Amino acid sequence: MKMNNFERIQNPKLRHRVVTAEQAASWIEDGMTLGLSGFTRAGDVKAVPTALVKRAQHEKFKVNVFTGASLGSDIDKLFAEAGILRKRLPFQADATMRKRINEGEFLFVDQHLSHTAEYIRNRVLEPIDFAIVEAITITGEGMIIPTTSVGNSLVFAQHAQEIIVEINTAQPLALEGVHDLYEVGQQGERNPIPITKPEDRIGVKGIQVDVDKIKGIVFTHQLDSPSTIVPPDKTTQTMAKHLIHFFRAEIAAGRLTESLAPLQSGIGSVANAVFHGFLESEFSHLKVYSEVLQDAVFDLIDAGKVSFASCCSMTLSDAKMKQVFAHFEKYREKLVLRPQEISNHPEIIRRLGLISINTALEVDLYGNVNSTHVLGTNMMNGIGGSGDFARHSRLAIFVTKSIAKEGNISSVVPFVSHVDHTEHDVDIIVTEQGYADLRGLAPRERVALIIEKCAHPLYREKLWDYYKEALKGGGQTPHVLEKAFSWHSNFKKYGTMNPTVSAD
Amino acid sequence: MKMNNFERIQNPKLRHRVVTAEQAASWIEDGMTLGLSGFTRAGDVKAVPTALVKRAQHEKFKVNVFTGASLGSDIDKLFAEAGILRKRLPFQADATMRKRINEGEFLFVDQHLSHTAEYIRNRVLEPIDFAIVEAITITGEGMIIPTTSVGNSLVFAQHAQEIIVEINTAQPLALEGVHDLYEVGQQGERNPIPITKPEDRIGVKGIQVDVDKIKGIVFTHQLDSPSTIVPPDKTTQTMAKHLIHFFRAEIAAGRLTESLAPLQSGIGSVANAVFHGFLESEFSHLKVYSEVLQDAVFDLIDAGKVSFASCCSMTLSDAKMKQVFAHFEKYREKLVLRPQEISNHPEIIRRLGLISINTALEVDLYGNVNSTHVLGTNMMNGIGGSGDFARHSRLAIFVTKSIAKEGNISSVVPFVSHVDHTEHDVDIIVTEQGYADLRGLAPRERVALIIEKCAHPLYREKLWDYYKEALKGGGQTPHVLEKAFSWHSNFKKYGTMNPTVSAD
Ligand SMILES: CC(C)(COP(=O)(O)OP(=O)(O)OC[C@H]1O[C@@H](n2cnc3c(N)ncnc32)[C@H](O)[C@@H]1OP(=O)(O)O)[C@@H](O)C(=O)NCCC(=O)NCCS
Ligand SMILES: CC(C)(COP(=O)(O)OP(=O)(O)OC[C@H]1O[C@@H](n2cnc3c(N)ncnc32)[C@H](O)[C@@H]1OP(=O)(O)O)[C@@H](O)C(=O)NCCC(=O)NCCS
Repeated sequence: MKMNNFERIQNPKLRHRVVTAEQAASWIEDGMTLGLSGFTRAGDVKAVPTALVKRAQHEKFKVNVFTGASLGSDIDKLFAEAGILRKRLPFQADATMRKRINEGEFLFVDQHLSHTAEYIRNRVLEPIDFAIVEAITITGEGMIIPTTSVGNSLVFAQHAQEIIVEINTAQPLALEGVHDLYEVGQQGERNPIPITKPEDRIGVKGIQVDVDKIKGIVFTHQLDSPSTIVPPDKTTQTMAKHLIHFFRAEIAAGRLTESLAPLQSGIGSVANAVFHGFLESEFSHLKVYSEVLQDAVFDLIDAGKVSFASCCSMTLSDAKMKQVFAHFEKYREKLVLRPQEISNHPEIIRRLGLISINTALEVDLYGNVNSTHVLGTNMMNGIGGSGDFARHSRLAIFVTKSIAKEGNISSVVPFVSHVDHTEHDVDIIVTEQGYADLRGLAPRERVALIIEKCAHPLYREKLWDYYKEALKGGGQTPHVLEKAFSWHSNFKKYGTMNPTVSAD
Repeated sequence: MKMNNFERIQNPKLRHRVVTAEQAASWIEDGMTLGLSGFTRAGDVKAVPTALVKRAQHEKFKVNVFTGASLGSDIDKLFAEAGILRKRLPFQADATMRKRINEGEFLFVDQHLSHTAEYIRNRVLEPIDFAIVEAITITGEGMIIPTTSVGNSLVFAQHAQEIIVEINTAQPLALEGVHDLYEVGQQGERNPIPITKPEDRIGVKGIQVDVDKIKGIVFTHQLDSPSTIVPPDKTTQTMAKHLIHFFRAEIAAGRLTESLAPLQSGIGSVANAVFHGFLESEFSHLKVYSEVLQDAVFDLIDAGKVSFASCCSMTLSDAKMKQVFAHFEKYREKLVLRPQEISNHPEIIRRLGLISINTALEVDLYGNVNSTHVLGTNMMNGIGGSGDFARHSRLAIFVTKSIAKEGNISSVVPFVSHVDHTEHDVDIIVTEQGYADLRGLAPRERVALIIEKCAHPLYREKLWDYYKEALKGGGQTPHVLEKAFSWHSNFKKYGTMNPTVSAD
């Protein structure tokens, strides 16, 4: 299917609303709140944000920017550098933005990705002045057909004063029909969400809006930024092997079958590598119910291992994007793109009994997980969907390398310097050393497993030392509070958690 | 309705299975796992556990004890003293048991109360040898009609090898028809739970079991232990006033109406006092969707303020129990008792958009909450349902007095010594000083509110000192890790968090 630009706006009334990105950006005023499409570098609006950043060269203003998750096309970097942000939520993953957040230049609200829509619906957050969303087309009835992500676009468009649409002609028209837009409605007046299988379609193919709210339409022609994940290496492959070993043990115990349970996997290289591990496994008829689909899921579809994948965004490498979009008919029937509220909804995650795999920065002796804060203070990316999944999954798995920074950091510490996931929400921890199955265990039972199966040999003895000292004080969760963060202090002072000089 | 004992067993086949508590207890073997009815001192089995404890006087054995939540009738105390426990889960609230847990005498697994049933269904926990459940009757079809709580009795009975029923003739027969037993089924094969209003009935009136699994029936005649809550005092009344002020502000902002949203309130005196506060308020047509109903809910029903209350247990004071059971026809149509998996289910909590009110031991500058661990190590009661509710409610409210132990402990600390609820799950914090509305705020925005509105004046300056020092290091969540737990260390060393001698 080919269309000229004009044909992509099927509602004649809307055709005269085409403007330049600069015109659209000029409508945005100091103090406004923008709701942008975009989730993990996919389906983000590209032109209007770029034009807005340009305005900042000769104008002083600040805006709140709400999105699905992280943006691509360097938009988050440009926003941060331009100094035009007052508040950013609910997730980001850009090095420059991260730096500015940690310097306190603007506010970052780190939210569970399923929560943002509820806060908007309940009018707790700043009201949205402009929803700015990327589309492949606008239908005759004024339905906006999203591109490679859905994110929070539905709730933004419904609750915004006005809407700007970026029609991106570089995004494949073949995506039409892949989305499934479902509005849950107000709490207290809502029905059950009728998904009982990852492949269930429950909504409509686009974002239905009042066409009078569409103030402008901008044309762009620019692919999503390719994903930045690095290919699996020896360490991540070893982690994948441990995980597969765990799944085999579950099958042997009669708790899983070879099609496992619908899978979710978080962002990042480790998570992608773990999925890659399934390629060489005996598991088949797998289904995915996740947020982001990375390359590995498409490899698994190609290999006939994954029969269906539900997501709210597709974030692919350059090569994979070309391949997938060149043969999209092969994937169409095996994919659905949903709002992040649905992909991450507790109701569905619990009902389907997902196996979720997310990444930790550090874990502690008792299985608490830090996924966001380096040394307890500096934001990395945000909690993202990891909390939505870990709390409600049938199996909440966290993966992390046992050490970071050439061994100067142990990812297993006495007390995590920030808690994103409590021991109640962490079932399995996997490192390249092995895995610890923590289900049904009391805190004291968890310690030996975590040290012996997950920690790096470099740090095992030291972890035992801490625990033995803590045990003298007793308790359900023994700790020496005075030394709980001494490893982190050591790293700050000496550049390593494993100093020859003592930090005390 | 009066019945003789014999008539309470309506299935003739079962009538010859009546045994003494001692006989039933004699079936329990070393190493077995028991699933007992009982939730917050209500509807617990009384005779068989007591007989089992007696056996321990001249026999050595250990068992795992799983329940709904805490037990009454001093059973948890007796278990702990008898030294017959290997593992106890998912909640307790007894001083002696707490002490033994913290001494490491047996294992305590602290779980979200909605999670235990899933772990049993997925065969992750030790298999249940005996389910021992309290009942008012057993119907002709072998349906066990529970008493004042449902807890985990359904999942225990379904998955146990064998069942022992305690028919308690002191529990009112009028309870028949008040329960609503619904089995969600296996994850992945399950339908939506069809509750859209607190009053919806979706199941059957009792626990349907294979009658052949009922090995024995024991008669008892003993009321539940009365609740131990203390009546509202000046401080808790002030907290209630702040909360009511907050609700009024929400109504003024158009975010709530005078019937608010279905209410949940946690255990304890503070939570009960807060509910009491509604008595003198203008709010009406309130509904409750909670775990435990304490006295205050019945006072609110009497006052015509609460029109319906859904729960999984009723834990009343002596006087209130007498009054309620003497006029039970007044309350029947306004009550439903559900399994704790349903009362605490994320799906329902999120759908109904509850207002949840739970108690914190301590909160920190950024809104993280510790509800379980004194000084980060010693178990108090357990997380209970607070995580189920806080994560999914429309409004997650935590209440705590600003100080404890005559002011030697500040309930607002730089860094909570244990995290049960992360800043993502905490909307409002209320102390007798005021309330902090944290919704949509970044960590740095939360600090001033929490210090100025919630902390005790005795500690405000010190909190500011910590924060100002932390700010020098920057970060999304500024901290001085070396001093993060210094307040707790001070308390341990000097008996106060506010020493004249410095602890550094
Ligand atoms: C945790 C997370 C940052 C890991 O990302 P990743 O790319 O898989 O992991 P890496 O091992 O490459 O680590 C990333 C960086 O953190 C550093 N790091 C890892 N562990 C660390 C620790 N304990 N302390 C400090 N730094 C650490 C690494 O050295 C690396 O640094 P670099 O970028 O300077 O090389 C990422 O998964 C995340 O943001 N998770 C939270 C959100 C989430 O889970 N979402 C899931 C649903 S989308
Ligand atoms: C947190 C919890 C223990 C508070 O109970 P409560 O009876 O309302 O609170 P109180 O203020 O009376 O405090 C209880 C005790 O803790 C002590 N305490 C309070 N704050 C403390 C702190 N920060 N550090 C140490 N001790 C503290 C009090 O002094 C009191 O001690 P005492 O028993 O020796 O007098 C209780 O609500 C709980 O167990 N919550 C977790 C489970 C839950 O929330 N369930 C909700 C759904 S059921």
